[in-house]
Amino acid sequence: MSSFGKLFRVTTYGESHCKGVGAIVDGVPPGMQLTEDHIQPQLSRRRPGQSKLTTPRNEKDKVTIMSGTEYGITLGTPIGLQVPNLDQRPHDYSETDVYPRPSHADYTYLEKYGVKASSGGGRASARETIGRVAAGAIAEKYLKEAYGVEIVAFVSSVGKVAMPFIHELEDTESVKPEFYDFLNTISREAVDEDITRCPDATTAEAMKEVITKKSEEKDSIGGTVTCVIRNCPIGLGEPCFDKLEALLAHAMLSIPATKGFEFGSGFNGTRMAGHVHNDPFIRLESGRFGTKTNYSGGVQGGISNGENIYFRVAFKPPATISKDQQTTSYDGVFGTLAARGRHDPCVVPRAVPIVEAMASLVIMDLALQQESRKAAFARLPSVDIHHSLLGKPPASQ
Amino acid sequence: MSSFGKLFRVTTYGESHCKGVGAIVDGVPPGMQLTEDHIQPQLSRRRPGQSKLTTPRNEKDKVTIMSGTEYGITLGTPIGLQVPNLDQRPHDYSETDVYPRPSHADYTYLEKYGVKASSGGGRASARETIGRVAAGAIAEKYLKEAYGVEIVAFVSSVGKVAMPFIHELEDTESVKPEFYDFLNTISREAVDEDITRCPDATTAEAMKEVITKKSEEKDSIGGTVTCVIRNCPIGLGEPCFDKLEALLAHAMLSIPATKGFEFGSGFNGTRMAGHVHNDPFIRLESGRFGTKTNYSGGVQGGISNGENIYFRVAFKPPATISKDQQTTSYDGVFGTLAARGRHDPCVVPRAVPIVEAMASLVIMDLALQQESRKAAFARLPSVDIHHSLLGKPPASQ
Amino acid sequence: MSSFGKLFRVTTYGESHCKGVGAIVDGVPPGMQLTEDHIQPQLSRRRPGQSKLTTPRNEKDKVTIMSGTEYGITLGTPIGLQVPNLDQRPHDYSETDVYPRPSHADYTYLEKYGVKASSGGGRASARETIGRVAAGAIAEKYLKEAYGVEIVAFVSSVGKVAMPFIHELEDTESVKPEFYDFLNTISREAVDEDITRCPDATTAEAMKEVITKKSEEKDSIGGTVTCVIRNCPIGLGEPCFDKLEALLAHAMLSIPATKGFEFGSGFNGTRMAGHVHNDPFIRLESGRFGTKTNYSGGVQGGISNGENIYFRVAFKPPATISKDQQTTSYDGVFGTLAARGRHDPCVVPRAVPIVEAMASLVIMDLALQQESRKAAFARLPSVDIHHSLLGKPPASQ
Amino acid sequence: MSSFGKLFRVTTYGESHCKGVGAIVDGVPPGMQLTEDHIQPQLSRRRPGQSKLTTPRNEKDKVTIMSGTEYGITLGTPIGLQVPNLDQRPHDYSETDVYPRPSHADYTYLEKYGVKASSGGGRASARETIGRVAAGAIAEKYLKEAYGVEIVAFVSSVGKVAMPFIHELEDTESVKPEFYDFLNTISREAVDEDITRCPDATTAEAMKEVITKKSEEKDSIGGTVTCVIRNCPIGLGEPCFDKLEALLAHAMLSIPATKGFEFGSGFNGTRMAGHVHNDPFIRLESGRFGTKTNYSGGVQGGISNGENIYFRVAFKPPATISKDQQTTSYDGVFGTLAARGRHDPCVVPRAVPIVEAMASLVIMDLALQQESRKAAFARLPSVDIHHSLLGKPPASQ
Repeated sequence: MSSFGKLFRVTTYGESHCKGVGAIVDGVPPGMQLTEDHIQPQLSRRRPGQSKLTTPRNEKDKVTIMSGTEYGITLGTPIGLQVPNLDQRPHDYSETDVYPRPSHADYTYLEKYGVKASSGGGRASARETIGRVAAGAIAEKYLKEAYGVEIVAFVSSVGKVAMPFIHELEDTESVKPEFYDFLNTISREAVDEDITRCPDATTAEAMKEVITKKSEEKDSIGGTVTCVIRNCPIGLGEPCFDKLEALLAHAMLSIPATKGFEFGSGFNGTRMAGHVHNDPFIRLESGRFGTKTNYSGGVQGGISNGENIYFRVAFKPPATISKDQQTTSYDGVFGTLAARGRHDPCVVPRAVPIVEAMASLVIMDLALQQESRKAAFARLPSVDIHHSLLGKPPASQ
Repeated sequence: MSSFGKLFRVTTYGESHCKGVGAIVDGVPPGMQLTEDHIQPQLSRRRPGQSKLTTPRNEKDKVTIMSGTEYGITLGTPIGLQVPNLDQRPHDYSETDVYPRPSHADYTYLEKYGVKASSGGGRASARETIGRVAAGAIAEKYLKEAYGVEIVAFVSSVGKVAMPFIHELEDTESVKPEFYDFLNTISREAVDEDITRCPDATTAEAMKEVITKKSEEKDSIGGTVTCVIRNCPIGLGEPCFDKLEALLAHAMLSIPATKGFEFGSGFNGTRMAGHVHNDPFIRLESGRFGTKTNYSGGVQGGISNGENIYFRVAFKPPATISKDQQTTSYDGVFGTLAARGRHDPCVVPRAVPIVEAMASLVIMDLALQQESRKAAFARLPSVDIHHSLLGKPPASQ
Repeated sequence: MSSFGKLFRVTTYGESHCKGVGAIVDGVPPGMQLTEDHIQPQLSRRRPGQSKLTTPRNEKDKVTIMSGTEYGITLGTPIGLQVPNLDQRPHDYSETDVYPRPSHADYTYLEKYGVKASSGGGRASARETIGRVAAGAIAEKYLKEAYGVEIVAFVSSVGKVAMPFIHELEDTESVKPEFYDFLNTISREAVDEDITRCPDATTAEAMKEVITKKSEEKDSIGGTVTCVIRNCPIGLGEPCFDKLEALLAHAMLSIPATKGFEFGSGFNGTRMAGHVHNDPFIRLESGRFGTKTNYSGGVQGGISNGENIYFRVAFKPPATISKDQQTTSYDGVFGTLAARGRHDPCVVPRAVPIVEAMASLVIMDLALQQESRKAAFARLPSVDIHHSLLGKPPASQ
Repeated sequence: MSSFGKLFRVTTYGESHCKGVGAIVDGVPPGMQLTEDHIQPQLSRRRPGQSKLTTPRNEKDKVTIMSGTEYGITLGTPIGLQVPNLDQRPHDYSETDVYPRPSHADYTYLEKYGVKASSGGGRASARETIGRVAAGAIAEKYLKEAYGVEIVAFVSSVGKVAMPFIHELEDTESVKPEFYDFLNTISREAVDEDITRCPDATTAEAMKEVITKKSEEKDSIGGTVTCVIRNCPIGLGEPCFDKLEALLAHAMLSIPATKGFEFGSGFNGTRMAGHVHNDPFIRLESGRFGTKTNYSGGVQGGISNGENIYFRVAFKPPATISKDQQTTSYDGVFGTLAARGRHDPCVVPRAVPIVEAMASLVIMDLALQQESRKAAFARLPSVDIHHSLLGKPPASQ
């Protein structure tokens, strides 16, 4: 469905050519400063047309807060968010009337609903992600103010061009400390320095070459986005089915064009020995426990342990390419779907704020659930607890 | 929380040393034959102690249907399922009283709940998966009978030893037709022929060597499980947040010890060119549309397209190893957590039925949702639909 | 929260003085004709200022469909609905800054959220119901087209002036057949003939006298709305917690100013003897079963039986009155909250479309759930069912 | 479905003649003392066979905690609860094979599911409520310890015999102070002094006469249960759809045999003038606000205001009577359904603990949600809030 979250719940609407897209964000804590200015920056980062590497259309996505605030303060009531579509006409795409585009949602939408948007994939349009990004910006603002949470995503690979740590992970059985340092320090500003949103200059140059080449070939290419969540409160994640990593995976795989998700050591971890993969506990100066290594990716038993949460999301090459394609029409005739116009050869740079938004939504919802548990525990009279159970107040970081 | 699913909803209870584990399965269609005999086989496949490759304990998990059937027929009311724990005493584990085990859930459970099960990670115990497997067996039975769905998982890698198609995918830009043939034909019987549950004899031998070596080294090793879903009805998956792949990712990452999920081309797809990755449509003899290649993994726009759904799940090396480990005690003192007893060096063979169960739960729930939509559409009076929308009844395969 | 429903789910936003109110309606079946013209009539019936009996403000609530349709056909994607607030300024109500209005939501909203809308009760405003009415109009349209469902509500009492059947029920132990006839035939047109929305002319006159008197006294008065649902499909309602009557009660008591709900024989039924209250089954000419009497109110065991569903909802006298009131200020000082302006002395006539809308939402959601069950049952192979279980296909009316 | 609640969620299973009934209670706060001894008393109060006024069968419902506690302390993991059925055989009720019992669930269950339990109504059996009562006892224990909440229900009427305050409410326009005093002081012990569970001795005697008479006449009679919730934290209830009264109504109408729900002034409130019905605020000695009268029933705008919450639930006369009944067989033939055995002529005394349990579940779930909001608010940095919004920390009583 079009809702995500339990206590912090986002519901979105909108497809390509309707009057607008939007979202209702329920469960926003009351008493927080919030205006459009807090939301617009992430929307602008998501917008196409930011550089010649991405699609030239300029959608000018301008958000309006319809409800839920007064005098710039959240009321605790649902925030209505709205972004008009500037191009609202249901297009009479002769092309998409004849052929379901390969690896697009045209065919499956028609099969699922018995009717399809004239533009093809309906809600599969990337415009649907506007509501998520706007909602994520609200979650992120709260998390930053309440816990100091920092969420930074970046492009870690485009095609076969990948940041060094990815290759290293594939070749060795352990992670270099430099990777952990990088995760500790990478900032959104550093990410945005290059239009590829890859914060490694050498890699970024190589990525640009690949994207330019694909563009010239009228082809497209995929890539990966890596994301780190710093200062996540300890204790988030609801066993068994709503483990933190399970919700992150759900959130990430709900982004259009994604093909995979891994966190911590990920697929490389399957090749490691247990005695290397286990993260020994150390007591930090602050008193809280940390781990020496972080193959766990900040999550153990489905629950955050206070270390950096990091994960990687795979994006396929965009299905819309500027080449002719041989495929079958709705009428069942094999033929040529002619290419039309220019298309974005690589979407991963624009996916960065979407990944950050979905991560924010997950952490926010789990934080609200854990705050409830902690408060409920705190209200109980103190009881004598058997030493094996080690009773102590739940984590409040 | 401990519930999964919307119309077909599983709720589980139980940890290691309580009186038993169990599940309530709500939304089971009425009128289906169901006895314990339909559920027990998958539970037995999940059970430890099946071979010297896995843990020697024999848990003898015997399921009882408490409610929801009469004369072997489902009533449509919730199915209560129960499996007693034979070893119910809350252990006075002196070890786990002193040290939170590295990369286990001991530390995070204590932080989350302020109290922990004496055995450590509480619900993080693998025994929690019994309820899932039992529920999955019910879903799977229905899907088989109603749609002919077949779900088969197998071990595709252990450590660096992987079935050939995995290496090929990493080295080339396209999949060999043999892989698709393999997915079309692999059966559970073939999978169970070897105790590794790897259906490629040469790879299986190499895997056994790796596992035996890790066992001798008192160490552990991870691996991956690949799963194929055949004959999945077209049209399953609920955009935008509950895309089929998003729910599968959620389901898989909720299994203990998982680190990653990819479907279709997965992470390798990020390195492919769009014109190769796009799956051209072809009209099958049956009349329905198929695709020539299947990098989409049977899902487009979050909705099943009738092709095989396939995905791969990464499992880390088990955290419990028979080696001493240097780590920090609950009291904050760095020291040695002494090894005790023998442990399972590799869990992926036992994970196979759990992956199948979780896949069944996802498909079942989405199938019930799509049946509702189809039936609702069918009740509407026929209207004149603009040609761009291509109105036709939703898929019923 | 601000969402209602499971498969047909409405989420609303908006309070009195924000930019607008709206709703997202998810789960609308695809392929249905839908434009603003299908929604506006119920909104207009809900609008204040329709007569001198109700508040003189004319809110002119004009709805726009933002998404989910093309060429006037539903796509199966969420319908975004929006109604602008013409008066958007956060009022600097000096009055509500000083005193929490008695029996309003001012005090509880401030206590709950720690901050309150400047207008007082935030979402407790009657404007919040606009989204419900708009969503209900969509549900109702589907139910009418798919099943012939008819939902008609009317004002059955104002103060002590009640339609005859209410008094009779209180005095006797059985219902007159005339009441059932009335439920079978009452239409929205008949209800709207009088501004009281009471379809009994004599009673309506008496109600107008009461309301006029209360208006002159600067006071207010409550009343009840009775609603009948005709042609409801058999088999709706999800035991145990989501019985049809439980969801109706939930829906009705979520309407502002409600104090009670009863269905079928209701509170009078508690005074009746079992042998009278039991509804004997009869076989109708159509072949389906009916009941001779209908104290069950069309629901047995939480499931609709095909007879008319009827229920009554209690509304308190509006808390906003044009009299001075002695009460306590936010600062804790007892004093006089001065009356300001003219207010609506009786809201029940305007509540009629809201009751109809909420009833539509409940029936729609349950219908989609039951369609899923029926379709799932139909896909099972036929099995030999023990005669005690009486296996037969679920009802499709 | 068979689940109720959001953060404190109960899922039940079981019908009349299966192996047992049970529940999973998810979201129980960790660190609370809990053994079977805390749950059994309410189960025993619910049990039939407690006196000659109720059914003579002695079901001996003995609960076992299967999971979620160790050493008598809750772990925060789901509590599995189980009560065996002593009479498990699927009865070959020749009677219920032939006739759907009037005003029972036999007919609707068969229509809904296409198959029915041999005993007739499947989950409509009163045994289903065992799981609710057990879960409610856990919620109630927490609420008592954490907030001092007291929940007491009692029989307020049987047939036309009602406690004095009910008649007064119907005859006058205001409530006597004695009624508020009664609500402040009534205890479970006082309620249990008489087998009718009516705490007014004169009324109780008259009730016994009515019930005895109905028993002799082989007939049955309904009644009402009134319930008060004292010391409920301020701020509970989630606008708009999950108002406190909406969830209470949902909970109460999900109990078998209920026909109505009213809270505070209820249906009588519809006959009152606004200036009487409005509850003026007063400042209590404790500092918190109270109200002079309490027609609001402790809830304003869907949110608790700290005053006593009180409500009344209508129960119909039991459908199972010891008289012959004229009705129609499954085959469509009108005939005589012969009476068999002796039956409970009045269920309201046994409904008392069920009403208390459902009330506990509602309050518990809403309390956990509000604790989350309060904790989230508390973490925000203090901001300058416009005076109209009156920013202050949410209520913590």
